[in-house]
Amino acid sequence: MAEKPSSSPDSAPDPGHAGRPAPDATRRSEKSRRAIFAAALALVGESGYPKTTIEGIAARAGVGKQTIYRWWSSKAEVLLDAFMDLGEQAARAAGQEPYTLPDTGDLAADLKLVLRATVDELLDPAFEVPSRALAAEGLVNDRLGAEFVAKLLEPQLQLYVRRLRSAQDQGDVRPDVDPRIALELFVSPLAQRWLQRTAPITYDYTDTLVDYALHGLAPR
Amino acid sequence: MAEKPSSSPDSAPDPGHAGRPAPDATRRSEKSRRAIFAAALALVGESGYPKTTIEGIAARAGVGKQTIYRWWSSKAEVLLDAFMDLGEQAARAAGQEPYTLPDTGDLAADLKLVLRATVDELLDPAFEVPSRALAAEGLVNDRLGAEFVAKLLEPQLQLYVRRLRSAQDQGDVRPDVDPRIALELFVSPLAQRWLQRTAPITYDYTDTLVDYALHGLAPR
Repeated sequence: MAEKPSSSPDSAPDPGHAGRPAPDATRRSEKSRRAIFAAALALVGESGYPKTTIEGIAARAGVGKQTIYRWWSSKAEVLLDAFMDLGEQAARAAGQEPYTLPDTGDLAADLKLVLRATVDELLDPAFEVPSRALAAEGLVNDRLGAEFVAKLLEPQLQLYVRRLRSAQDQGDVRPDVDPRIALELFVSPLAQRWLQRTAPITYDYTDTLVDYALHGLAPR
Repeated sequence: MAEKPSSSPDSAPDPGHAGRPAPDATRRSEKSRRAIFAAALALVGESGYPKTTIEGIAARAGVGKQTIYRWWSSKAEVLLDAFMDLGEQAARAAGQEPYTLPDTGDLAADLKLVLRATVDELLDPAFEVPSRALAAEGLVNDRLGAEFVAKLLEPQLQLYVRRLRSAQDQGDVRPDVDPRIALELFVSPLAQRWLQRTAPITYDYTDTLVDYALHGLAPR
């Protein structure tokens, strides 16, 4: 598999050629890559994971099947990259650097900001429909579920682990707390409401989760 | 639809006849009902929700299709009843009354007990495989998802609401806390770990969730 084209401004994508590609080739690769991601997300949202095929993605993206196979070896890989790209775009649209959480020294404020941006993302149909289809398949398809967790979900949860460790260093979280469990007190309720549609998700709701998690339900 | 036979000892099931049925008829109905539930759960676990049919359930249970249609109008209804029955059996096996949570006056101990029993249930293959299949379908099938939440999930969550209200009366939970949100701090992390297999579920884990939720992550 050749190196994948990337939207990162400081990388030099090179699909299949040695050395730096001509600017036109870079632009063409980037255009194909965007079209492939959009087609993959649309198809999985419309037809579900089992009926989404590389052939269907290629046809909808207006590229040859070989263009997809040059960069990815399976539909699962295309979709995982498409979701990672979607997450990066959402982070940038919310004014955040992807793959970091804000650390202003105010833990509650930082967590509320990130969870409000997550609410926006979860309610965006461009994200919601394909994400729900992929998540549903992950529940019954062990291999896809494990890849989904390892490549998409767990790296995001580790950002909270790092932020909570920093809060422990600053004395804002008890030193005996396990950050990997602690983050679930506010992340998992939002995930379950969204996934299973048990109740509405709003900024008020995620703010409340952060307050309850930090200060506890019992009187102080 | 005729009244459904029930395993409750003080009800008099009567599938299609007026008055109290003969003991033999009751036993036959109860046997059919058990066979239908077992067949429905096995099929949805093996083949997924879309491929499970009333015909398939009837064939596997060794009953006529009409026996099923006499008591239920759709496969969704059969499955929801089968899961409710499974939950009732699991509660009894754990020595608890179904549809109540213990209230010994020790909130942490009561919650830990119930969550440990939930861990046992979630790890039991007889529950896990069909539950996962139904949950997966609920994520992408709005109508089934809504029924699943309204009939199975939300009534269980309301048991925690009642227990937390009682704790508020006893001064063990702050009066300004919304119990419907508060319960998610320990219920949703367990649900997400189980559903998406993000990490193992153990008694230690659920005990920790209860401690963190009650006492908070911030120093006291």
